[in-house]
Amino acid sequence: MTAGCATASFDENRPQEKPMTKFMDVHSGFVGVTAQQLKEAHERDLAIEADESVHFEHAWLDPESGKVFCLARGPSREAVLRIHERAGHPASEIYELAVEVA
Amino acid sequence: MTAGCATASFDENRPQEKPMTKFMDVHSGFVGVTAQQLKEAHERDLAIEADESVHFEHAWLDPESGKVFCLARGPSREAVLRIHERAGHPASEIYELAVEVA
Repeated sequence: MTAGCATASFDENRPQEKPMTKFMDVHSGFVGVTAQQLKEAHERDLAIEADESVHFEHAWLDPESGKVFCLARGPSREAVLRIHERAGHPASEIYELAVEVA
Repeated sequence: MTAGCATASFDENRPQEKPMTKFMDVHSGFVGVTAQQLKEAHERDLAIEADESVHFEHAWLDPESGKVFCLARGPSREAVLRIHERAGHPASEIYELAVEVA
């Protein structure tokens, strides 16, 4: 009986297995932003992303055009967008990456 | 002397060390494209990319919106665009990724 309870407790504490879809979101207006500033912005996402079961894997910046591309995993596009909004840099576009090749 | 010639020959055959900048290019109009079709399109790039010292590292597709994002390394944005054009799928946008975080 003790063993059964321990197993149940273990299962309850496991992370919820939500489907983790990949997304690419795009920000505009980051003209002239530095590597340090991008790092700080990214860290603001990382600090709160767990609230929505999101993970921001990578961010790339073209400081001339001001475009930022963020590759993320999460349960929905809304979850990804909410984290970016709360972190102070809402994305202007987001795409669900159903297919990829490498 | 033979050893010297062998060394010179080795140096001549080394890949040219051009600066390899990262680029993200974006294609539109790939609505409903399948994983197999994306793979075939990507392979057409890979087959000729060495002509321009380019390497396409990754491609992501959102088949609903028809957007494709390609991450590449190469000596210039023009070199990347020439490969995509010759492969039959010109990109509509390209960005030089001077900064990245992960």
